[in-house]
Amino acid sequence: MQIERALNEAASSANRVLDELIPAVDGAEGRVVEAMRYATMGGGKRIRPYLVLNSAALFNVAPSYAIRAAAAVEMLHCYSLVHDDLPAMDDSDLRRGRPTAHKQFDEATAILAGDGLLTLAFEVLSHPETHPDGGVRAELVHALAVAGGAAGMVGGQMIDLAAENMTLDIGAITRLQRMKTGAIIAFSCEAGAILGHAGPQARHALNAYAHDLGLAFQIVDDLLDAEGTAESIGKPAGADAAAGKATFVSILGLERARDQARLLGEQANAHLESFGAKADPLRWMTEFVISRKS
Amino acid sequence: MQIERALNEAASSANRVLDELIPAVDGAEGRVVEAMRYATMGGGKRIRPYLVLNSAALFNVAPSYAIRAAAAVEMLHCYSLVHDDLPAMDDSDLRRGRPTAHKQFDEATAILAGDGLLTLAFEVLSHPETHPDGGVRAELVHALAVAGGAAGMVGGQMIDLAAENMTLDIGAITRLQRMKTGAIIAFSCEAGAILGHAGPQARHALNAYAHDLGLAFQIVDDLLDAEGTAESIGKPAGADAAAGKATFVSILGLERARDQARLLGEQANAHLESFGAKADPLRWMTEFVISRKS
Repeated sequence: MQIERALNEAASSANRVLDELIPAVDGAEGRVVEAMRYATMGGGKRIRPYLVLNSAALFNVAPSYAIRAAAAVEMLHCYSLVHDDLPAMDDSDLRRGRPTAHKQFDEATAILAGDGLLTLAFEVLSHPETHPDGGVRAELVHALAVAGGAAGMVGGQMIDLAAENMTLDIGAITRLQRMKTGAIIAFSCEAGAILGHAGPQARHALNAYAHDLGLAFQIVDDLLDAEGTAESIGKPAGADAAAGKATFVSILGLERARDQARLLGEQANAHLESFGAKADPLRWMTEFVISRKS
Repeated sequence: MQIERALNEAASSANRVLDELIPAVDGAEGRVVEAMRYATMGGGKRIRPYLVLNSAALFNVAPSYAIRAAAAVEMLHCYSLVHDDLPAMDDSDLRRGRPTAHKQFDEATAILAGDGLLTLAFEVLSHPETHPDGGVRAELVHALAVAGGAAGMVGGQMIDLAAENMTLDIGAITRLQRMKTGAIIAFSCEAGAILGHAGPQARHALNAYAHDLGLAFQIVDDLLDAEGTAESIGKPAGADAAAGKATFVSILGLERARDQARLLGEQANAHLESFGAKADPLRWMTEFVISRKS
């Protein structure tokens, strides 16, 4: 598949730049930097960097700029995983097949490593090497902060924690996921548009693409959680169901959820029409998101 | 005292703008916003906002710009208090005479509220209302991110946690405090210089002032911890000694620590000479920092 080669290429670039942007340091503070490196370097498909790089390519943005924005959004993503995994939050021991940061280090170091990555994302975006125009840098920072804040990822995680004691309908789940995971996916595409000084029509089209892609991504996530468990323990219920959480699957059922994901994928790609063949890498991503098995 | 009136005025402005910038919201995510408000609105002397406002005044910066930068640095300060107070970090139940955020809400909400405040600080700095020049906004973001990151506050807190199992000498403690508390105090003065397009000489002078002031502040903090009561300082007294932490007081002794703070104060004010009478509010702050009892 073309997407796999393209995704590997994007991941290699992102890994290289993350490695450069988070150099190990000596001294007692070296431990938190080590944890920041551990949290960002442990693999991951690098879907968000891929979206930054390929939305930027639509507007012929210099790759040396786009890759820094790509690294910044991945830092933000990894910080959110580190904090979400904490004992007080989702209390997860495993992430990407390895011990989570607080298991590998300790809880205090994991909290600080998350804080450090969140802060570094903004340091990277605001640095002149990310774009010579300060207005572009400030716009990137602002868009990422909105996507990451109480109206975006932080608010979404708050709702998710509260959701264990609430009955969410399909509208509430859609809103939750739009905030918790959709906002950063939308930022990843918006970043390309900002770097490329894109006009309002192109921005709107990319935003609509990202919104549908993000929702499809989450539905497939729910499907994998429900079906993966079905295979392994022979019961039609996964971790979400065990936690009593409403998901797209618990509300729509497997078949309608699958249909809905496919429909959203088609809708996502329809928004890309005006970009022509240049948007093929974004179309491949849609296919990848819908058909992924992990 | 003039400083008290000036400090009250700055605090009132900061409180008003913080209240506007963190409006309560409905919905399940309202809880994290409520915790963000709790963490920022509970008093505090607002020393950092005061420094931003009065360093900006040296360069005739519009107060409507400076107050937003002042609010942003206070958000960063409050986020660091919320996370430092967590059970996995300093495990403090009291802050400014009230329950800490994780006691008042819960641990997950406190972690998210800290994340939300850190993110909001960058959102505020990068917004066009903070300055019409995008380059200025990006420079503010970058300076705050450097001060707050692994080479600044986050790294300082990491060293501080490790320090319970280490023997620090005066050089190591000075470095720790310069990172943990000094960097944000230095940013507070730098913010005024950035907003005011100050030249390198003025920036250097302000940075030297902030550095000496920050160190004096920390020495007095250690003195208050050693000599004060929980009532007077709003948090448990004697915490450093109880934790076996080396401080300026444990190394220098009370008297030499007191002398050192006074000396640093004189040094701090000497750096302000070129600003003339315009820098009087910064001189008052030095006096306030040296002689404060809480």
